[in-house]
Amino acid sequence: MKAAILGVCPSVVVVDITHEVDKFSVRAGAYTLASAAPYFPKGTIHVAVVDPGVGTRRRSVLIQTHRGFFVGPDNGILILAAEKQGIRRIHEITNRRLMLPRVSSTFHGRDVFAPAAAHLANGVHAAEFGPEIRDAVKPEFTKVTLRRDILAGEVLHVDSFGNIITNISEKEIVRVRVKDLVNVELSNHKLRLKLCKAYGEAKPREPLALIGSHNYLEIAVNQANAAAEFGTKPGDKIKLWPLTRI
Amino acid sequence: MKAAILGVCPSVVVVDITHEVDKFSVRAGAYTLASAAPYFPKGTIHVAVVDPGVGTRRRSVLIQTHRGFFVGPDNGILILAAEKQGIRRIHEITNRRLMLPRVSSTFHGRDVFAPAAAHLANGVHAAEFGPEIRDAVKPEFTKVTLRRDILAGEVLHVDSFGNIITNISEKEIVRVRVKDLVNVELSNHKLRLKLCKAYGEAKPREPLALIGSHNYLEIAVNQANAAAEFGTKPGDKIKLWPLTRI
Amino acid sequence: MKAAILGVCPSVVVVDITHEVDKFSVRAGAYTLASAAPYFPKGTIHVAVVDPGVGTRRRSVLIQTHRGFFVGPDNGILILAAEKQGIRRIHEITNRRLMLPRVSSTFHGRDVFAPAAAHLANGVHAAEFGPEIRDAVKPEFTKVTLRRDILAGEVLHVDSFGNIITNISEKEIVRVRVKDLVNVELSNHKLRLKLCKAYGEAKPREPLALIGSHNYLEIAVNQANAAAEFGTKPGDKIKLWPLTRI
Repeated sequence: MKAAILGVCPSVVVVDITHEVDKFSVRAGAYTLASAAPYFPKGTIHVAVVDPGVGTRRRSVLIQTHRGFFVGPDNGILILAAEKQGIRRIHEITNRRLMLPRVSSTFHGRDVFAPAAAHLANGVHAAEFGPEIRDAVKPEFTKVTLRRDILAGEVLHVDSFGNIITNISEKEIVRVRVKDLVNVELSNHKLRLKLCKAYGEAKPREPLALIGSHNYLEIAVNQANAAAEFGTKPGDKIKLWPLTRI
Repeated sequence: MKAAILGVCPSVVVVDITHEVDKFSVRAGAYTLASAAPYFPKGTIHVAVVDPGVGTRRRSVLIQTHRGFFVGPDNGILILAAEKQGIRRIHEITNRRLMLPRVSSTFHGRDVFAPAAAHLANGVHAAEFGPEIRDAVKPEFTKVTLRRDILAGEVLHVDSFGNIITNISEKEIVRVRVKDLVNVELSNHKLRLKLCKAYGEAKPREPLALIGSHNYLEIAVNQANAAAEFGTKPGDKIKLWPLTRI
Repeated sequence: MKAAILGVCPSVVVVDITHEVDKFSVRAGAYTLASAAPYFPKGTIHVAVVDPGVGTRRRSVLIQTHRGFFVGPDNGILILAAEKQGIRRIHEITNRRLMLPRVSSTFHGRDVFAPAAAHLANGVHAAEFGPEIRDAVKPEFTKVTLRRDILAGEVLHVDSFGNIITNISEKEIVRVRVKDLVNVELSNHKLRLKLCKAYGEAKPREPLALIGSHNYLEIAVNQANAAAEFGTKPGDKIKLWPLTRI
């Protein structure tokens, strides 16, 4: 992919975020991109590929936001990060002249997304890649609902420490005006958790909630593996509400 | 290695292909390089190091092709990629003034190959590195034979999905004029396989042959692990011939 | 972290040394940095983060040496590499205007160290980051003692081949004037080892000592796993003395 980018735009600076996203996990890819993208300079073009649907009818897309661009498969991997920046418009990528001469049916990262990103870096206008679309795929994990003071979302990722990262962001937590303690329902457990600023504010082996460095609500156990303790895996639902409600 | 490169040529753009090649596997390194190199711009200088013979009498080489350069140990890791581009000449690297001041007996990647690549980037002529040679090492895995319509090659790599990647390229497949079905002999199995364009053209758990995104013949099982199913490992021999021949 | 760097100094060249250091292992981080840093050009700004104390009272530091800069947590990860270059002075990083606008309590790599390195690259003077300090943390693993011809140090790292890398450098070995054979005490084993230049100088399965490509004393077993054979792990003590002494 980097070769394909440099072939089209030799002067661009390419930065690897990670190559360690779990195979097939669009959700983990979306989380990783949403965590890292806010720190990149304005105008950055992000490319992300977790692409189990490559070679099928899934579309290739380019999302223009108020801060930059996102290029990848239309399976939701880009939406979480792009929505944080404010989406301006989404184009399907159909223009064969802006792809590699030969497009395989198994590796669009190299043949479609990388060259598209490089052409964008060269100044090619978003509209030249293909038609604007309004029905981009929005998986469940991009949605957080608030009903009667109950925030409902889902688990995006379990990190290598067993910390449970959800799709509920700090902004949403603020809306339900929680204080020091919150009620949480997660993987068939009902928990009353301290809302901490650091893992160390809880006692060893005490569960806690905090807003992680990625800006999402995280459920952790101090010095232990929260996912193992609660039997939690990516995709599990989570509910959260203020203490006064019960 | 990157430090050694930048110490000699600070303005060069360094691109990592991978750091995940299996330890000691010259074959896997050769395959990885041959898959990626065709996508890099003309003039690219490739460095590849899988080097079990470091510190012994194995030579260090620099290969000039019609599209660029390859630098590394003379154990075959470069040949597969270099032959695809058409080899112009091969020099042994013996000039100590183009190495780091102190050359260890365990890490020529840093002390010999990286500085050589950087000096090439600075415009040093290939002939200055050492004498031209005509007997570069060519391991079995770089050879595909065609006898009486039977293509014979070997397995280069088993990827993390269990797909079996061989050293038989698309160009060679075309020479035996196979149609939709091919006969394959692999790891003591005789198979009659569909030649597909995508894994999904086979039924779930059905074996298939396809030309992968790396441009080599691949034996796979749709939604399953082909290498486990056939007991295949890198180095196994493979034969392929058209259906009409049996 | 790379995003945070490029946000402050877009023209800087960022080079990854590794992302594979064992979690929480300050010792392994220090070893890795000390192995790689000598090969980088003069003026390089190194950032290293293994940071179990993030969010506690551990300080952030910037070390100016005779060859460049080191930025990271004040837990010893920088000292081994910095001392090799000759330390000029150490500043605590306290100036909030040279950090990201919002500093998390869990990821100072991104919020403190990366921006500090980028500001240094922009020419900001070391003194602007905070007060000079003289009591930087110096863990046991940074110390090698010589008493009555006995060198005493400890194991920094066990590599993926099982080779045992110690904190005793070539310069120190020279001081005890060892010849071809040395006495070694390691993990409750007393060994008399050949001091080799390459693994292959020992017989298969024979233990040996050598100065590795990282310039530290290494205890290995030719074609086998030394750490498994001697039950050695990072942090174990090692003693070495010339043969004549016993």
